[in-house]
Amino acid sequence: MSNYQQLEKHFKKLSRFNHLGAICGWDQASMMPEGGNDARSAAMAELAVYTHQLLTDPKLQALFTQAESESLSTEQQASLREMKNRWQQATVLPEDLVEAQSKAGSVCEHAWRNQRKDNNWADFQTNLEKVVELSRQEAQIRSEATGLSRYNALVDLYEPGMTTDKLDVIFADVKSWLPDLIQQIQKKQQSESVLTPQGPFAIDKQKELSVEMMKLLGFDFNHGRLDVSIHPFCGGVPTDVRMTTRYDEVDFTSALMGVIHETGHARYEQGLPKEWAELPAGEARSMGIHESQSLLFEMQLSRSLEFINLLAPTAQALFNREDDPAFTAENITLFNTRVKPAFIRVDADEVTYPAHIILRYEIERDLIEGKIEVADIPSLWNQKMTEYLGVNTEGNYTDGCMQDIHWTDGSFGYFPSYTLGAMYAAQFMATMRKEMDVEQLISDNNLTPIFTWLEANIWSKASTLTTDELVIRATGESLNPSYFKEHLISRYL
Amino acid sequence: MSNYQQLEKHFKKLSRFNHLGAICGWDQASMMPEGGNDARSAAMAELAVYTHQLLTDPKLQALFTQAESESLSTEQQASLREMKNRWQQATVLPEDLVEAQSKAGSVCEHAWRNQRKDNNWADFQTNLEKVVELSRQEAQIRSEATGLSRYNALVDLYEPGMTTDKLDVIFADVKSWLPDLIQQIQKKQQSESVLTPQGPFAIDKQKELSVEMMKLLGFDFNHGRLDVSIHPFCGGVPTDVRMTTRYDEVDFTSALMGVIHETGHARYEQGLPKEWAELPAGEARSMGIHESQSLLFEMQLSRSLEFINLLAPTAQALFNREDDPAFTAENITLFNTRVKPAFIRVDADEVTYPAHIILRYEIERDLIEGKIEVADIPSLWNQKMTEYLGVNTEGNYTDGCMQDIHWTDGSFGYFPSYTLGAMYAAQFMATMRKEMDVEQLISDNNLTPIFTWLEANIWSKASTLTTDELVIRATGESLNPSYFKEHLISRYL
Repeated sequence: MSNYQQLEKHFKKLSRFNHLGAICGWDQASMMPEGGNDARSAAMAELAVYTHQLLTDPKLQALFTQAESESLSTEQQASLREMKNRWQQATVLPEDLVEAQSKAGSVCEHAWRNQRKDNNWADFQTNLEKVVELSRQEAQIRSEATGLSRYNALVDLYEPGMTTDKLDVIFADVKSWLPDLIQQIQKKQQSESVLTPQGPFAIDKQKELSVEMMKLLGFDFNHGRLDVSIHPFCGGVPTDVRMTTRYDEVDFTSALMGVIHETGHARYEQGLPKEWAELPAGEARSMGIHESQSLLFEMQLSRSLEFINLLAPTAQALFNREDDPAFTAENITLFNTRVKPAFIRVDADEVTYPAHIILRYEIERDLIEGKIEVADIPSLWNQKMTEYLGVNTEGNYTDGCMQDIHWTDGSFGYFPSYTLGAMYAAQFMATMRKEMDVEQLISDNNLTPIFTWLEANIWSKASTLTTDELVIRATGESLNPSYFKEHLISRYL
Repeated sequence: MSNYQQLEKHFKKLSRFNHLGAICGWDQASMMPEGGNDARSAAMAELAVYTHQLLTDPKLQALFTQAESESLSTEQQASLREMKNRWQQATVLPEDLVEAQSKAGSVCEHAWRNQRKDNNWADFQTNLEKVVELSRQEAQIRSEATGLSRYNALVDLYEPGMTTDKLDVIFADVKSWLPDLIQQIQKKQQSESVLTPQGPFAIDKQKELSVEMMKLLGFDFNHGRLDVSIHPFCGGVPTDVRMTTRYDEVDFTSALMGVIHETGHARYEQGLPKEWAELPAGEARSMGIHESQSLLFEMQLSRSLEFINLLAPTAQALFNREDDPAFTAENITLFNTRVKPAFIRVDADEVTYPAHIILRYEIERDLIEGKIEVADIPSLWNQKMTEYLGVNTEGNYTDGCMQDIHWTDGSFGYFPSYTLGAMYAAQFMATMRKEMDVEQLISDNNLTPIFTWLEANIWSKASTLTTDELVIRATGESLNPSYFKEHLISRYL
């Protein structure tokens, strides 16, 4: 067995243990009774220790060195690169730092749940300062190992190849036109009259509607299922994708749009190439590319009038609202494309969403690079919210700088992925429009050519290409945020 | 850390990986879509390799030797004994034998599924001969390691301490009175008129009834749940017991009695002592004791008129059968206690069931000890079925010697556990009757004293006592099959 083959065998073993963890994690969130939690958490922690051992196995170093001089195909070289990345990212941190981060993150996140409710910035600040201090240490170590800047070394964990040089340019562009665009759209929407569908909407009917939409969007129920959890997610493994949602009897569109979003993630997972199964090269490319698939489904496809025309009759029939003017495709479309600057990122529409991300990016970048301190966050938050969205958050930590879970456990570098995803989605869709009449296909309920394009250009490539290579091959150019701007103008103005 | 403590740590680690396997195994049977099976099986196989490595870790031998000279409490000594048993049972077999058994068993079981349908003994015999040959090798090795006879060395895997010396005496006694008793009961029952409840019975109502009965029987839904699988089982872990059932629209009593049976298993698991959690000493004592709990629930408790009096109103209300004469408590009780010798063990009533077991015991004992060959099975089967139950199986392999899955993968030594369970159950119940008015308690819907007795005497003891110690402490004597005989006479004559 060649060194490369030994590495494949080792990483497949790791993948199989991760498989067990993914299913037990899904179970913990969607099936497990509360009383099972302590023992399950102990079992999951034991698994995490073991998978970390597998990933940092001392024998790997020699295998990597020797495999690099073996004769490998282009794809095997990419596979080797991805395995080595995982190994380097896992081995570079000293165990005591990982443990300290885990503890500090756990303390900060746990306390945050109540501190946020109590608008208690002062106590949260103390905990967050410890988390940031450890994340700065992590960034320093990763920076030395990779040659990237400190913040870039963290971004690289989620978006390999993405840097502040690129992000600063992209986001500066967005900032130059977004605030004005938001105002124009708001002005235009003032004159629209929109009806809010009135519930209650029975959960079992919402579930039927969700399943119908998943089928319409090509979800393979022979390789996955839909269940319920408090925080919706797309988990499991590519051969068995576990999607979850949460139903709200008052507003059926919230679960519905959430399900469509997760279906985008799910189809990416289900469409990953079988020949690279259980290997890093066969996994999804990055958080941004993953989000591009969910947003392509949720925003690009499913908030269009053409798609709502497919959806509305099913919703009308299930909820018995054939004669309800709130259930016309036109009204549902208007209802689903309202734009309104507000406090909360996760509730934001696709137009104001990038402002929430840019604000967080700028703060976390400077925080990790040591240019600002935790104590500076509230005033910066308020200043940027006012500037980008005209929203005043002074003294309101709950709905301001304490609203997100990400920073509490040290996940710095993740936020840009959301907006990168929206931009990739717009760019992919713009490319498809050059090759096919997307709106006509949707109107004809013939979505297959769209999925075929995604499968050929995105899903089947997995991580065998770098993100930049993937995007260039799919669209003919690197990430270009102008497609996102054009999408917003075309849909909203 | 003492050697004993190091052993505890090691076995807790093993238990946590078994936890992940139990949940993923449950998921595979009850939740997983078909398309997920290949990758799941690969993940489960990888886990099995690893847990076998943990159990046969070379460092354990020295730890056991050194722990034995450490100062240990009585319970710690029992804990050490149980850990060592697991280790010895796992380490004694050479890897190539285990692998050969796994392959031969898999081939035999897989082919059996169709061979049984086709009544094809000849081809099955060829496969079974290989399985038996390997099981004889296993028995020989285990015999040399334990000093037990070959068959006893296999029985010991399921019923530690049980031997053919004891089983021969017990089963000879049963054979001396059972055939005659069956005839007397059949004669008595000829004059009874029994109505068969007529379906269909809606699945969702059956599920409600199941959950109601589980609540009545004290199942803790904060530490477990009920789902559906093709082959019902009780899995999961003590803190999170996963019960399954299968609903038949034609006959609601089949799922109901199955659920009550599994609830007995489940309460044993849920009642295991927290202080020995994740350690072999904290696990259920044996297959026979486990079965005693399921049969105590299903047979002793739930086929009594007093219990059916609790059950019937719920069933009547759920199925809207308040005026159906088939739904009176008296009729349901009669329906649930019919005795009829027949071909199939799993469908047998509690009176004829031991005959099925004794037959299998006698054949597998002589097979493993080398006194008979696989080719002898069909004629022995027919001879014994005729003698014990008056049923002729000549030429009918499908419903004769090919009906069970156990032998196909080499599970020899397991069958006696079923009837030992029925006997332990009768003995436990007889002891309870000396301490409390069981029938009155059931009539008063006050089952708590019964569960309290079981928890104190059986569940909380787990494997901290040997089976014989457990039974003597609980009932004042070793296993005594006369209680089972008395139970049958009292209920059926």
